[in-house]
Amino acid sequence: MADPRFFTRAGPFSLRELAVIAEAELATDTDTEKSVSDIAALSEATGADISFLDNKLYVSEFTTSSAGACLVRPEYIDRAPADMALLLTEQPYHAYARVASAFYPAQQSRSEVHPTASISDTAVIGAGVCIGPNAVVSDGVEIAGGTEIGGNTTIGAGVKIGNNCQVFSNVTLQCCLIGDRVIVHPGVRIGQDGFGFAMGADGHLKVPQLGRVLIEDDVEIGANSTIDRGAGPDTVIGRGSKIDNLVQIGHNVRLGAGCVIVAQVGISGSTQLGNFVVAGGQVGFAGHLTIGDGAQIAAQSGVAKSIDPGAKMGGTPAQPMNDWLRGVTSLQRLTKRKG
Amino acid sequence: MADPRFFTRAGPFSLRELAVIAEAELATDTDTEKSVSDIAALSEATGADISFLDNKLYVSEFTTSSAGACLVRPEYIDRAPADMALLLTEQPYHAYARVASAFYPAQQSRSEVHPTASISDTAVIGAGVCIGPNAVVSDGVEIAGGTEIGGNTTIGAGVKIGNNCQVFSNVTLQCCLIGDRVIVHPGVRIGQDGFGFAMGADGHLKVPQLGRVLIEDDVEIGANSTIDRGAGPDTVIGRGSKIDNLVQIGHNVRLGAGCVIVAQVGISGSTQLGNFVVAGGQVGFAGHLTIGDGAQIAAQSGVAKSIDPGAKMGGTPAQPMNDWLRGVTSLQRLTKRKG
Amino acid sequence: MADPRFFTRAGPFSLRELAVIAEAELATDTDTEKSVSDIAALSEATGADISFLDNKLYVSEFTTSSAGACLVRPEYIDRAPADMALLLTEQPYHAYARVASAFYPAQQSRSEVHPTASISDTAVIGAGVCIGPNAVVSDGVEIAGGTEIGGNTTIGAGVKIGNNCQVFSNVTLQCCLIGDRVIVHPGVRIGQDGFGFAMGADGHLKVPQLGRVLIEDDVEIGANSTIDRGAGPDTVIGRGSKIDNLVQIGHNVRLGAGCVIVAQVGISGSTQLGNFVVAGGQVGFAGHLTIGDGAQIAAQSGVAKSIDPGAKMGGTPAQPMNDWLRGVTSLQRLTKRKG
Repeated sequence: MADPRFFTRAGPFSLRELAVIAEAELATDTDTEKSVSDIAALSEATGADISFLDNKLYVSEFTTSSAGACLVRPEYIDRAPADMALLLTEQPYHAYARVASAFYPAQQSRSEVHPTASISDTAVIGAGVCIGPNAVVSDGVEIAGGTEIGGNTTIGAGVKIGNNCQVFSNVTLQCCLIGDRVIVHPGVRIGQDGFGFAMGADGHLKVPQLGRVLIEDDVEIGANSTIDRGAGPDTVIGRGSKIDNLVQIGHNVRLGAGCVIVAQVGISGSTQLGNFVVAGGQVGFAGHLTIGDGAQIAAQSGVAKSIDPGAKMGGTPAQPMNDWLRGVTSLQRLTKRKG
Repeated sequence: MADPRFFTRAGPFSLRELAVIAEAELATDTDTEKSVSDIAALSEATGADISFLDNKLYVSEFTTSSAGACLVRPEYIDRAPADMALLLTEQPYHAYARVASAFYPAQQSRSEVHPTASISDTAVIGAGVCIGPNAVVSDGVEIAGGTEIGGNTTIGAGVKIGNNCQVFSNVTLQCCLIGDRVIVHPGVRIGQDGFGFAMGADGHLKVPQLGRVLIEDDVEIGANSTIDRGAGPDTVIGRGSKIDNLVQIGHNVRLGAGCVIVAQVGISGSTQLGNFVVAGGQVGFAGHLTIGDGAQIAAQSGVAKSIDPGAKMGGTPAQPMNDWLRGVTSLQRLTKRKG
Repeated sequence: MADPRFFTRAGPFSLRELAVIAEAELATDTDTEKSVSDIAALSEATGADISFLDNKLYVSEFTTSSAGACLVRPEYIDRAPADMALLLTEQPYHAYARVASAFYPAQQSRSEVHPTASISDTAVIGAGVCIGPNAVVSDGVEIAGGTEIGGNTTIGAGVKIGNNCQVFSNVTLQCCLIGDRVIVHPGVRIGQDGFGFAMGADGHLKVPQLGRVLIEDDVEIGANSTIDRGAGPDTVIGRGSKIDNLVQIGHNVRLGAGCVIVAQVGISGSTQLGNFVVAGGQVGFAGHLTIGDGAQIAAQSGVAKSIDPGAKMGGTPAQPMNDWLRGVTSLQRLTKRKG
């Protein structure tokens, strides 16, 4: 059970309700009104809990689990303990995500503007907005309904934030337009100057950065990540993209929809990622590249050239994944023979 | 045109004025009093805009551009559209930087100390200083004239900041002395303890960090970068050096003048960089190295040994660039043959 | 001498007192009451200073130093200048750490809650706690005696912090329990959501993150580092572990006691480090690995598999250090022959 100091549990729910929430189907002869009071891992669940089996490595835990109910693929029906109620689905992890969100819904903010927040007279604050202590909301800012702004966050002039966003504490926003249901974790910096200089042997001349950052709906941005505004065009983070912690996104970069960018990735200026690109942790992208839809890049790779849609790449400089793995093996063989 | 919510445009300027600003020469028979109202890319410019041609990849856009004026090298005079006024220069990108700065000058701060800022009675605040909401200025801090401090920034006791600096929001400064015209982007941390421990099998003993950070004039430091103070000697960032986002600079590191340090680079303790060293993104430097003037290190390299002045290096461990590239090619050939 | 704007010196101390502090032994015939007023490097010390010799590269500086006293291994007695008092120890650097801490003790905070701090009525604040300007302390927070909270730091509901901790400025804490004598540097983010999604071709479903972060006693966390809370289990940082700047620690990660994690390391979800593991700068760990006690991983390595206790590893993917170094040499030889 989650620590009640930090998480507030809803429920209980009947199996009938949970099947609807999970988008799963109850196995035949299930007591649809049986009550479930919490979620738990297979090995820790009691009769009052619902659990899930997604990874087949955990089948043996499933067969011996005391969970009162379980989200599971139909193929495992025969392996279930006798007393366990089954909610059948081909996507148990997705179903778990929905059930867990029902038991532990995102904390309701108190829709209030804290008296210590510094709010410009020209800011437009929607209904049900929560603004935390010592937050700063500058001239001309617009914050739409249901959005929450954390304590000590600073929002620069003219920034626009959509509905039902969560901007956590100690964030800085400048020169950006943010869509709906966007989550911005603590310490994120959006919209500062890109790294633009006319370099010279006697000094580097600053080039004004005159674009913006556009964050589309349902984006999530991890703690202490940085997204520079465009130099002239905009920097764009496409709908539903998920960015982990300590990621750097340079000026004019464009991410398509549904990208997954793991922690400490760096994307240099003007590189464009298609839709549903996945970049593992600490990957670096050079500037001015085009990365095709659905490309996947292994952790720590260095991407120096554009990548075709759907390609799986690894290494520095990044090559097709199989070539890279073969290269690693070849080098190890060589080392053994000649070492 | 830049979004007026975020950027305030100056001008219009005559071609005569712009030639002076750009340090360029008007082509013969140009109407020197023709008025220009904005900057724009070659492909988007109208007759009221000035554009620039720097990279020869864009010559075809130049020849068909509708821009009223263009900053361009003299060699391209013959390729210009008939109606385009030409401002001739050997450094069109530098000229563009100057013109863009004229049309979009750095925002004028309102020289005021916001009433919610917490300012020590013993702090000395110069003329025309702007201090944002909820900023904290501790005992004995000195801030010289024309400097701007962002909201929610925290300045520790004894810190000294020069003239006309821009310290953005949510920054933390401790134990540092900062020169003139320095730009510190949001979330930067300067002057915290370096990572100094007397390590032992039964625990690690903290070694007091008794140096400072000295930031010389005209330095720029990117969002969420961290610069630790010296252990005994000072950590020094030389005049005009430009540091990108999420860069880590360890204790006792010294950067010469005009260095360019791209995002997510890490420089370990006591390493010294000469003047105008360039480090690509995600490069790592071991400690106690000497990197010569003008050395250039490719992105993601791991620098384990000192580097001669002017050397171009790449790879992990870093080698001369040509050797590294040849090694990559050799390995790929080997893989194909034996794979 | 350390800059008095930033550091307050204690002392002077007699050699007798310093020997006790340093856990060292005075050489015979030393004037035990001789007074020492400061610490200094061998090359800069005067007769009123104490210095130390740890690294044998500095023996020649030792033999010519003007330091009035020196912490040194007994084997160097014969090399000492005639007038230098010797404090003998097998661990001169540890001894120096203790002496430096005596001369420059951690700044005493004024035990006060600044009037601009926003403190919930339900927070419990211990004796001698210092809370800086514009800090935010939310409902149900507990802060034990002698702990200092910096300006503009935001502490979320229910967080618990032990005795004599130092939480610097502009920090964000959520969903975490922190032990005693923990140091949290500026810009650290603890306890935000881990990067947990049920991924899909039509969008990624957020998985609630219901664990906490547990920080054990005597941990130190560097500036702008990020530690995500567990997804269900907790994220744990073991007693006495030292984490440098800009480090990313994913959900469910567990560090044992005394680990040393250098700057910009990334540790993916559910990976477990034993006790006294050392990871060099920019190392990346894949998820769900087990790293044995005392393992050491070279800077920039990519750790893709679990590691045995005591192993020394390097490279991407990480191999035993000797194999990796041999591989590097082989490749360089190959390049020369075939290039």
